[in-house]
Amino acid sequence: MKIAVLRERAEGESRVAATPETVGKFIGLGATVSVEEGAGLGSRIGDDQFVAAGATISPTVAIAVQGADIVLCVRRPSASTLTGVNPGALVIGALDPYGNEADVAALAQTGVTAMVMEFMPRITRAQVMDILSSQANLAGYQAVIEAAAVFERAMPMMMTAAGTVRPAKAFVMGAGVAGLQAIATAKRLGAVVSATDVRPAAKEQVESLGGKFIAVEDEEFKQAETAGGYAKQMSAEYQAKQAELTASHIAKQDIVITTALIPGRPAPRLITREMVESMAPGSVIVDLAAERGGNVELTQPGKVVDHNGVIIVGYTNVQGRIPTTASQLYARNILAFITTLIDAKEKKLAVNWDDELVKATVLTRDGAVVHPNFQQAAAAP
Amino acid sequence: MKIAVLRERAEGESRVAATPETVGKFIGLGATVSVEEGAGLGSRIGDDQFVAAGATISPTVAIAVQGADIVLCVRRPSASTLTGVNPGALVIGALDPYGNEADVAALAQTGVTAMVMEFMPRITRAQVMDILSSQANLAGYQAVIEAAAVFERAMPMMMTAAGTVRPAKAFVMGAGVAGLQAIATAKRLGAVVSATDVRPAAKEQVESLGGKFIAVEDEEFKQAETAGGYAKQMSAEYQAKQAELTASHIAKQDIVITTALIPGRPAPRLITREMVESMAPGSVIVDLAAERGGNVELTQPGKVVDHNGVIIVGYTNVQGRIPTTASQLYARNILAFITTLIDAKEKKLAVNWDDELVKATVLTRDGAVVHPNFQQAAAAP
Repeated sequence: MKIAVLRERAEGESRVAATPETVGKFIGLGATVSVEEGAGLGSRIGDDQFVAAGATISPTVAIAVQGADIVLCVRRPSASTLTGVNPGALVIGALDPYGNEADVAALAQTGVTAMVMEFMPRITRAQVMDILSSQANLAGYQAVIEAAAVFERAMPMMMTAAGTVRPAKAFVMGAGVAGLQAIATAKRLGAVVSATDVRPAAKEQVESLGGKFIAVEDEEFKQAETAGGYAKQMSAEYQAKQAELTASHIAKQDIVITTALIPGRPAPRLITREMVESMAPGSVIVDLAAERGGNVELTQPGKVVDHNGVIIVGYTNVQGRIPTTASQLYARNILAFITTLIDAKEKKLAVNWDDELVKATVLTRDGAVVHPNFQQAAAAP
Repeated sequence: MKIAVLRERAEGESRVAATPETVGKFIGLGATVSVEEGAGLGSRIGDDQFVAAGATISPTVAIAVQGADIVLCVRRPSASTLTGVNPGALVIGALDPYGNEADVAALAQTGVTAMVMEFMPRITRAQVMDILSSQANLAGYQAVIEAAAVFERAMPMMMTAAGTVRPAKAFVMGAGVAGLQAIATAKRLGAVVSATDVRPAAKEQVESLGGKFIAVEDEEFKQAETAGGYAKQMSAEYQAKQAELTASHIAKQDIVITTALIPGRPAPRLITREMVESMAPGSVIVDLAAERGGNVELTQPGKVVDHNGVIIVGYTNVQGRIPTTASQLYARNILAFITTLIDAKEKKLAVNWDDELVKATVLTRDGAVVHPNFQQAAAAP
């Protein structure tokens, strides 16, 4: 049983799908591990560290994937990257299929079984495999660090001989995993923190972290919590009311962090140009939804822009800006999933195709796109 | 009584010597205030805000200083910047005279009374005027923010579904004002913090902030505390012992912040190339002494460098990277001093040349360099 670990090819992707820690565990499960040369460098893991954990280093991707039963990656590899891969090999990663149907179809044609880590069901058993949570948690932390780094004032209240410095006011939009970590981190740094979310359950969570909850709490709000843990799309009427409340609140903030992402959709627009322009010069917005177009009208994905003195941070891979920790957790998520795909006694791959984790994550198999959300792509020529 | 506020000319200097808050106070003391156009922009203070506080805006420096009794600045202005200034005007700022004797002599020849804010005695009455403390405090805060921004891991311990992330280990060298704020800020962010200093009194302070104190605690150490609050230079023998202890400690750290500055001297060398090379790739050093050559052998003043994977941050004006707060406190320090130089009833300048604050800070007067520390410069042709 051979596991291959790819070097990432996407620009700015500094993470890696395995670490010396998880390589050691794979070997304990009876696998051999082939790591593509330099795969860990972006996360400060040298080839020598992988070798020390028991892996071999492959000088090319072709050698890494040759004969592999499992191919691990962060970003979706192109079909050409996988040239020579065994048909039937499992390709496991954050494959981001939405909006990339042509690439998914090409991937299917290689014959591999592509498994989408983002589709992992949000059930107790799969929490340890939940890359969305592990990475969003770090993005929420790093968003506050990025904000503090460009913010031109101190975050905490300071009592000095020359008088008091008031604490920064930070507002977090969206109190999911990223938002809650952003709240906690901004509180650590001494900011006065408020937050909003369309789910009523978030109110208690925000308050338990010391944040003030800001929302139009009408009937629709109370009914909005969905079983999947994600925010469903709210009515236009609610959105208008919420935008009005938000707008007046944002005008008074020093730092705003937006975290609203709905899987498979463009990011909802939470902050308009007018709201940005209502903020004082020197204020900072960090838009964690930049990768899907942004929650802020003026976000430029991948860039830090200054609009009339308001700094808008639009990095598209914020978790990738703390790659060492991000890779550590991502690799553990992957390890936990793979453990369910292996027969440890026989030391070989033993996928239970009826397991709900497998059914939820398999995107392509036997040359076709098989995931129900992508039947159209599968039907394409 | 006219007070002029200069726009700073030094590269990267974003601070300003007055704010709308202090301008209002000056006017309350009977002064008129002339602010050079754009003086506040680096600190996000628009000319309109100065006007709203009662100042007039001068389109050129010549107009600003014309007839001024007091000229306020952050950095030492060149003699040519002050062309047309009244002989006898007070020029008050962070004049940084050491090593700049030729510029100081030129300044003297303009006839102004230059007053060095860094020379303010460290006595209770002058605490509110202590720019070294107010700015060092912010530098210590910002040093940790800069470290977190380039650090590729999370600072706090994180308990996640995918397992625990260990907290970062941060080591602060020098537990003066900057060091103590760095300790406090690193603790806020969840790091495991240790610190060192040659003064025994620092041990208690470090521990009271939750840091672990690291020092060779021999007889010399116990006698090293000086009245001025600064570290006196230690013996070569002590330095060798301390360097040995420090070296073994540094090798295990993720983040090191150095803050050792002795006024008027080059920064002491605390971290050698070998110590840098003993740290793991991905570690971060922030050198707050970069402006005086650096505490770290490999620091490049003004730059962020990567030496074998260890990031060395050598910004020369770290407090200037949070200019809004830095200007706020600096301006308050200046205001407090000027209040002692004014007769509020008569609404005019009334300098008591025998006041110890004045005696300690006056650098030039009546065309000569008069400060005892600079008698040689005064004797120069």
